[in-house]
Amino acid sequence: LFWSKVLIGILCSAAVLTLGILIGHFGITKSSGSAPSWVRDVAKDVDESLVEKFLSEVDNIQIQENLRELTKVPHMATTAGDEQTVKFMLKRWQDPESGLDQAWREEYMVYLSFPDPKNPNSVTVVTPSDAVLHTVREKEKPYTADQEDPEVGKLVYANQGKPSDYELLNRTIDLNGTIAITRYGGAGRAAKAINAAPYGIIGVLVYTDPLDINDGLMSDINETYPHSWYLPPSGVERGSFKNHYGDMLTPYLAAKEETYRIPAKNVTGIPPIPIQPIGFEDAYILICVSVESLFVCLPCCFTLLNLNLCSSDVKLDIFNYEEVRSSANVMGVIRGSVEPDRYVIYGNHRDSWVHGAIDPSSGTSVMLELSRVLGKMVKQGKWRPRRSIIFGSWGAEEFGLIGSAEYTEQYFTKLSERTVAYINVDIAVFANATLRASGMPSVQNVIFTAAKQVDAPGLDSMSVYDNWIQYANKTSPAHGTIPRVGYLSGAGSDYAAFVHYLGITSMDISYTYDRSKTNARIYPAYHTAYDTFDYASKFIDPGFTSHQATGRTAGNILIRLADSLVLPLNCSDYAESLEEYLKTAIDLAQSYIHRHIVTSSAFHVKINAYHPPLSHLSFSPLKVRMINDQLMLLDRAFLNPLAFPDKYGYRHVIWASSSAGQPTFPGLADAYDKAESSGQSNDWDKVHYHLSVLSQAIDGAAHMLLDVI
Amino acid sequence: LFWSKVLIGILCSAAVLTLGILIGHFGITKSSGSAPSWVRDVAKDVDESLVEKFLSEVDNIQIQENLRELTKVPHMATTAGDEQTVKFMLKRWQDPESGLDQAWREEYMVYLSFPDPKNPNSVTVVTPSDAVLHTVREKEKPYTADQEDPEVGKLVYANQGKPSDYELLNRTIDLNGTIAITRYGGAGRAAKAINAAPYGIIGVLVYTDPLDINDGLMSDINETYPHSWYLPPSGVERGSFKNHYGDMLTPYLAAKEETYRIPAKNVTGIPPIPIQPIGFEDAYILICVSVESLFVCLPCCFTLLNLNLCSSDVKLDIFNYEEVRSSANVMGVIRGSVEPDRYVIYGNHRDSWVHGAIDPSSGTSVMLELSRVLGKMVKQGKWRPRRSIIFGSWGAEEFGLIGSAEYTEQYFTKLSERTVAYINVDIAVFANATLRASGMPSVQNVIFTAAKQVDAPGLDSMSVYDNWIQYANKTSPAHGTIPRVGYLSGAGSDYAAFVHYLGITSMDISYTYDRSKTNARIYPAYHTAYDTFDYASKFIDPGFTSHQATGRTAGNILIRLADSLVLPLNCSDYAESLEEYLKTAIDLAQSYIHRHIVTSSAFHVKINAYHPPLSHLSFSPLKVRMINDQLMLLDRAFLNPLAFPDKYGYRHVIWASSSAGQPTFPGLADAYDKAESSGQSNDWDKVHYHLSVLSQAIDGAAHMLLDVI
Repeated sequence: LFWSKVLIGILCSAAVLTLGILIGHFGITKSSGSAPSWVRDVAKDVDESLVEKFLSEVDNIQIQENLRELTKVPHMATTAGDEQTVKFMLKRWQDPESGLDQAWREEYMVYLSFPDPKNPNSVTVVTPSDAVLHTVREKEKPYTADQEDPEVGKLVYANQGKPSDYELLNRTIDLNGTIAITRYGGAGRAAKAINAAPYGIIGVLVYTDPLDINDGLMSDINETYPHSWYLPPSGVERGSFKNHYGDMLTPYLAAKEETYRIPAKNVTGIPPIPIQPIGFEDAYILICVSVESLFVCLPCCFTLLNLNLCSSDVKLDIFNYEEVRSSANVMGVIRGSVEPDRYVIYGNHRDSWVHGAIDPSSGTSVMLELSRVLGKMVKQGKWRPRRSIIFGSWGAEEFGLIGSAEYTEQYFTKLSERTVAYINVDIAVFANATLRASGMPSVQNVIFTAAKQVDAPGLDSMSVYDNWIQYANKTSPAHGTIPRVGYLSGAGSDYAAFVHYLGITSMDISYTYDRSKTNARIYPAYHTAYDTFDYASKFIDPGFTSHQATGRTAGNILIRLADSLVLPLNCSDYAESLEEYLKTAIDLAQSYIHRHIVTSSAFHVKINAYHPPLSHLSFSPLKVRMINDQLMLLDRAFLNPLAFPDKYGYRHVIWASSSAGQPTFPGLADAYDKAESSGQSNDWDKVHYHLSVLSQAIDGAAHMLLDVI
Repeated sequence: LFWSKVLIGILCSAAVLTLGILIGHFGITKSSGSAPSWVRDVAKDVDESLVEKFLSEVDNIQIQENLRELTKVPHMATTAGDEQTVKFMLKRWQDPESGLDQAWREEYMVYLSFPDPKNPNSVTVVTPSDAVLHTVREKEKPYTADQEDPEVGKLVYANQGKPSDYELLNRTIDLNGTIAITRYGGAGRAAKAINAAPYGIIGVLVYTDPLDINDGLMSDINETYPHSWYLPPSGVERGSFKNHYGDMLTPYLAAKEETYRIPAKNVTGIPPIPIQPIGFEDAYILICVSVESLFVCLPCCFTLLNLNLCSSDVKLDIFNYEEVRSSANVMGVIRGSVEPDRYVIYGNHRDSWVHGAIDPSSGTSVMLELSRVLGKMVKQGKWRPRRSIIFGSWGAEEFGLIGSAEYTEQYFTKLSERTVAYINVDIAVFANATLRASGMPSVQNVIFTAAKQVDAPGLDSMSVYDNWIQYANKTSPAHGTIPRVGYLSGAGSDYAAFVHYLGITSMDISYTYDRSKTNARIYPAYHTAYDTFDYASKFIDPGFTSHQATGRTAGNILIRLADSLVLPLNCSDYAESLEEYLKTAIDLAQSYIHRHIVTSSAFHVKINAYHPPLSHLSFSPLKVRMINDQLMLLDRAFLNPLAFPDKYGYRHVIWASSSAGQPTFPGLADAYDKAESSGQSNDWDKVHYHLSVLSQAIDGAAHMLLDVI
């Protein structure tokens, strides 16, 4: 198996690198005396006492107050509330005592869809003569003052069920001309509406089922918010229903004012039929109306049943309109002292659907606290990172990761060539039980190192790491039992453009659930009007200590990536994961893949020649830079801009979203899935093509790591 | 005009860089004493005395003997003769006294087209009853022993006229079912056969006209070779008739044994009808046959006219067959001492059509002499370059630049990230009058520096530079009168994959004609059986002093790129050229471009913020590396893998082949050309799209140069 050989090669190289590090440190400590001052500078490494100082200064109350400020008004992208948060971020990052070296706003002209305030969307149940029997709530029911702001509740996008759901329904019911109602979960928002259209379905409603989000609870008299974290019956989960990320009119180009825009009719990746999210209160009434097509079993349905509605039609009036509006990223920088042309980027979006206390302001509150602590050390002259740190407060994420995507398009080459890693902290705290981390396998180790140095909130003398390993773990051949780090194969937050378009080593960090205590698909107020400061501080993280733990962990990672002499990216962990993905792929397609790989003896010979003589790794700043560049650029070797012609912005061939549900080696998995079901030889050709793409990418990565020439 | 602003920005940056260089040198000379040894190493710069030693050791007789050895047998790609040259290169590069650190062969399995020896291609004139009246010569006429080798003269590909030629003919003649005969020149080989097919033409013959190649001479009794450099009447110019470069079955993947291959029926970029090159002797007879469609006026025609032929048909029997064969690149390396992970690549193809004395063996002979002189210095411990030098002896170039293209596909990421520059010397000497150089504008200055240090062959105390400026010059706003450096917009030699696919700063160097003495389209024996050692040494460069001058110049450039502390790539010269291209584009499309560019005030503000504080450029090895990386990666910012969906392997948006004949800003030029003629609004949209692509690329390059953040 040539891949195994490649992987072994990578593992060997990791050993070589470790040796390089030792030689490096040894070489450095000896140099001093009359040497020029930069000799000492270039040898700088992480200062553990500074890390300790940082950890002690990250403050839960500061985070709480950041959140209070950020959630004062709803701040949907491009609204006045959004502008207010832009100004707030700038004020903080330009603060003379705790700000960054520089902060500025960057505007993009982006194409967004909004409800029309003069002509609100409506969902009604009507008689054949168009008499209205029931009107679905236009706004969520207010329990606290937060919900009565005039901008609350303007909904934009919606979605629906899996292909198999429609197929099943279609066996017994003529779907042509119907409006479908579905529950969230199981498949992406946009995908489910796109799935509906081929059946002639003319509109889609989507709601959040209490079984999926509320552990079955549904009464706002004593069960749901404000009595608990559960979603009230009128809660509506908003969301983007685009399949592609980034600005829709300027694919692969930054959406500046003068940029060419494709005609709106040529936009791809959006559902062809209108869709609307609603609360479960209304959903249950409507489901009883559409009892014929009932495929979600609701015990409550018959108790709510209003017989008048039963033979009536549902009317969906959607008046959303599209507009090009200016959306801002807020950017801030701490310039590196030794390698200013190497970046560690830390980011989160700023825009919310309504008040967005958890999504995204929990992450932004944490980011502001990190930047305050680090900024203060810089302003006081106590510290300057080896590499540059860039903070990004992205705009219009909720409309499809637009701010971060446009940023990566505008600065494509510079970011590709210089970015060491991207850290994303969006929802900082889903729940207060344990750390959750996803990322490229090479960042696993630095996350572990950082998490070991942070106290777990609410637990005596237990680290975040030790707590985490109890909730999610796996067995690694090299390390034994370790916490399980997830994939970044999709486009769930702003890491997408960094991972899939730029091939930058990335991670996503948060605190999350104890799954023994809840089955909620996500925290219940997600994307609803109930995601407020009150909700966050009462039910998600009272005391903000989980926010603090997330901030300490993510900040510790940030400092290590910015200050380490040799980058703390571990390519042998990448190799181990690739072996795991390979095993998955082989299990998936036993005979076929074997047949094609076993013949490739040419690779064996080549791999054996890859080991560079150790003597070449003796220390000099340029040798360390050489090793660091190898580590930094490893993921870039996995990019192929032609591998996924149908997936917008996806170029990383090791990970991607997959229609076959197999996020590792996704091109291969999808091709295999298709070939298996069609049996056609040109589909089997595609399997072979993706094998070649993968083997070339892995081989290319091995070349980057192992060969100087 | 925002572009001007950008360009000015780039110019300013160049000044900053110059300062950086001065500071660098100053900073370095002070450091010594007890500093670690690498402190001195990292500050190494070009050693001028070593350059002098190199220049003095490059020997014309060694080059002559290299050529004699390389041209002993015909060495068409993948033949036994080719294998003989592989072994010869390896022997030389592995020589213990004058070889390189390492040399090896790299095999690709590539798809080539050959004539069938058992069933030779034939062109005949036949009566309606198929009686043969005339048979076109199957092999060229031998004058020296060189032409009698059994492998001489197996022809492979052919081609024909411009679109306008066919259009004109089509007004008076029904072209359906005809065979077209055309002369070389005016348009590419493949393009002309592709142009023919839509008219129903069923085959194409192509010949070299004496007016185009022989300054009108055509008698082999006293005028043509072996009496002069002119082409004998039976000389046949071979060539590849592919429109795409690289292996045809493995687009964008390295053609290794196990790589997925597209079905042969899906190959793109090849003409749909058979084509065959022939000599002008036969061409004249055939043209008289096809006197009806005569559009090239030949005074000789009527004297040759055989009245029997006049009402007859031409029969074209083409039995070429395709086969996947193993083709080798030979690679050699001198490992860099300080920055081994930075490469200067020097290459030429090794395969010829027949003996290929000039094309390509003149270049290979020069490369072997450079590697001998440099290799000896390395083996004797007198020198080791700062950066690594990679020599490439590419295979199967004549079949479409295959060896170099596969190499760039296989090592894509590594080469992208590490290659400082690519130097191509294919035909080293077209003629012995003057230097010729083409390349990215940023390499102009290092070519000038090198050419000033080399004596012009046959001229007392005149440099190659001073001689060159007399033959080809232009006025530069910054430098006054300077030699004119050409474009690398097409795919004429192995620089194509480096320029267009990888975006690596490249150049192509040779000695060439005195245009006041000949109008020959190219040296007359080009791609014929007469391109032999005898021909080269008697008529192209007797004494091999022009070979020597090319070698000294190219080698001097190579040393400077490999050894300079700060890379000798001048971004202000790039800026000057971009201004020139912009002017050309504006002249081309006055009103339209103005309308779209003048509004972009957003750019002005940003550019002004780009100037980095000078203090950041004080010396340290990592600061110098930062500047060098900016220079190295400048061209990478001009890549856009989506800009030319119809042009295989073209990604560099500043330069490319252009159907509108405008190689600078080619996407814009072609889009403008199409929109002008169609007047359709979606074609004007494409103009705007290409404006955005260009402005984003130029802006991206400016960001790379001017901004550390």
